Amino acid sequence: MSVTCAQGFRAAGVAAGIKNSGNPDLALVVNDGPRFDAAGVFTRNKVKAAPVLWSEQVLATGSLHAVVLNSGGANACTGPEGFQTSHATAEKAAEVLGSDTDPWGAVDVAICSTGLIGAQLPRERVLAGVELAAGALASDEGAGLAAATAVMTTDTVAKQSSRTDPAGWSVGGFTKGAGMIAPSMATMLSVITTDAVVDVPVLQEALRAAVRVSYDRLDIDGVMSTNDTVIVMASGASGVEADPIDLTNALTAVCKDLAAQMQADAEGVTKRITVRVSGAVTEDEAVVVARTVARDSLVKTALFGSDPNWGRIAAAVGYSAADVNPDLLDVAVNGVLLCKGGVAAGDRGAADLSGKEILVQVELGLGDGVAEILTTDLSHAYVEENSAYSS
Amino acid sequence: MSVTCAQGFRAAGVAAGIKNSGNPDLALVVNDGPRFDAAGVFTRNKVKAAPVLWSEQVLATGSLHAVVLNSGGANACTGPEGFQTSHATAEKAAEVLGSDTDPWGAVDVAICSTGLIGAQLPRERVLAGVELAAGALASDEGAGLAAATAVMTTDTVAKQSSRTDPAGWSVGGFTKGAGMIAPSMATMLSVITTDAVVDVPVLQEALRAAVRVSYDRLDIDGVMSTNDTVIVMASGASGVEADPIDLTNALTAVCKDLAAQMQADAEGVTKRITVRVSGAVTEDEAVVVARTVARDSLVKTALFGSDPNWGRIAAAVGYSAADVNPDLLDVAVNGVLLCKGGVAAGDRGAADLSGKEILVQVELGLGDGVAEILTTDLSHAYVEENSAYSS
Repeated sequence: MSVTCAQGFRAAGVAAGIKNSGNPDLALVVNDGPRFDAAGVFTRNKVKAAPVLWSEQVLATGSLHAVVLNSGGANACTGPEGFQTSHATAEKAAEVLGSDTDPWGAVDVAICSTGLIGAQLPRERVLAGVELAAGALASDEGAGLAAATAVMTTDTVAKQSSRTDPAGWSVGGFTKGAGMIAPSMATMLSVITTDAVVDVPVLQEALRAAVRVSYDRLDIDGVMSTNDTVIVMASGASGVEADPIDLTNALTAVCKDLAAQMQADAEGVTKRITVRVSGAVTEDEAVVVARTVARDSLVKTALFGSDPNWGRIAAAVGYSAADVNPDLLDVAVNGVLLCKGGVAAGDRGAADLSGKEILVQVELGLGDGVAEILTTDLSHAYVEENSAYSS
Repeated sequence: MSVTCAQGFRAAGVAAGIKNSGNPDLALVVNDGPRFDAAGVFTRNKVKAAPVLWSEQVLATGSLHAVVLNSGGANACTGPEGFQTSHATAEKAAEVLGSDTDPWGAVDVAICSTGLIGAQLPRERVLAGVELAAGALASDEGAGLAAATAVMTTDTVAKQSSRTDPAGWSVGGFTKGAGMIAPSMATMLSVITTDAVVDVPVLQEALRAAVRVSYDRLDIDGVMSTNDTVIVMASGASGVEADPIDLTNALTAVCKDLAAQMQADAEGVTKRITVRVSGAVTEDEAVVVARTVARDSLVKTALFGSDPNWGRIAAAVGYSAADVNPDLLDVAVNGVLLCKGGVAAGDRGAADLSGKEILVQVELGLGDGVAEILTTDLSHAYVEENSAYSS
């Protein structure tokens, strides 16, 4: 089901005392090989957390033996001391997990962190946690779940997914948080594993393609974190070489499933909203329009109130940076056409928004560009959670 | 105090039955000359309301005798029928207010509307309202206040301002709503008058300069309306030619005062937030950074909760489109330095955010670019008002 679904991987999640609550806060995912191909996608925020700077650096080799993840602190805006903590954590993992016959270096270990920005991590607790987690490593489903649980912050459920290809290899993974380009208050961290035999360039390309249409199309509140990270590791343990297209499809399926789970668990969500834009000049322009609608506070509050306020949707389309002809604009909500050619059409009352799922469809009438963005409503609970919780 | 402060202007505000509530909903501002110079600034939304399309067209002449404004309906996304309503309203005003010796055309009348998008205005009521308002025109303070009151939607107070130049001319105006580039749920409409003698190019340039540092620097929720309009009319009735710089300064002072009143009255506001960015490469980049911080839902909810969460501010700076060096970044909240050189500094607890005014200062350390954006917090009341009120 999770990162332990693919052969060649062990995982663990433990309570290292980083969180004051005593909840699990340190996860470890280890690749036992025989291959150690790896790739990553990171936040585009210019203020990058120490673990992001560290992991980008070690992934330049295209090889990883393990990933250490912690919740309870983002280790962002922590300067040289914070970077040394990430480095020391990787060294500790290498020291504990390497062997005489298979010596590791810190360069074989990626680091991910999530939590409050600006505070130093309690380094000794993190290092002790790595030892603890190393002793708890296992390859069963429970171990994968423990790792997925230890990275949770405001998540209410662990988020895992897997796919098995008929050719005999699998992909599994977990995630936490609520976005990628636009991860809500919670940083988005995801580790994905596969036992397919795959070279690094293919793996990197497949991951980029998968993220582009999954995590990158989830936009809760337009905020981009300092820590967002997606890492994929390939053990080759199945002995089966993956077709690049099949691998991309499997990674995409897992990432889309995980993104949908993040949408469903986003902070304060009462509505799961899909904004589908068609008829844009290009796919990129469809994304721009869908993202603008998905981020619009007035659209999001209206949908929280179950109000099919298509005028706010039309206004958001109009101020997006994309090509728009107002006279060709159609808007439908939950299948009911409310705006045709830029003018009111149909019966507002016919659009039933009382359920949890809302589909907003925007047709621009200009070209073939199509895209979907997943988002949520803007609710009282969102305000409550984000005003009361320092994250 | 208001649009009637400058000589040569009369105003009125009446209840025309456009709003179901029976509250005042139609305002008229008339320029009695001897000059009729006029200029306007309009929304950059590509979905423009009928009154915006109409007013942009008539202002091409650089001359206006009157502005008719209504609340209770935006007349946006209303197609040819909506445009005909704006046209008919201007014709009615010309018919009622022109005379044999001073015949007006519809082209002498600008139209502004605010309210729900997508519904046709009740044209007959609007036309009858114009007649009613024409009969109520007066040049006293009460008349100016009546006009400022009739355009209110979710505003809780009428917003007026004026300045008198020592040279002997005045500027007055009113506004409604909560933004310009980014007018909250409420469209921003503003009418400004002056009795200075001023040619159209100078008037247009002064208005643009004033709007750029006032309405354009107020950003409640990043949403741009279909109807935003600022119109200035100059009667020349003082007989005094305005120095272009003095005129720009007076217009700027009035627009800044009105923008601050909009900030204070923004829907759901519990905190008035000023985001001041310095050390940017250029002023434009300072605006980009300040606007990104001002729009960030996580920053806005933290400040609603009186939490000096500078990490969220640093993250927002980092994903802005401007040049940023994280190692040079300083952040202070209410005068307390919390982040120095991209790392925690000072005592979070020392920043007292319990009051209604919050100053966020960001120093980028890169250049001389400075800018301020005014915004508000993201509160429960914001969510309530915008989920319950169809606007």
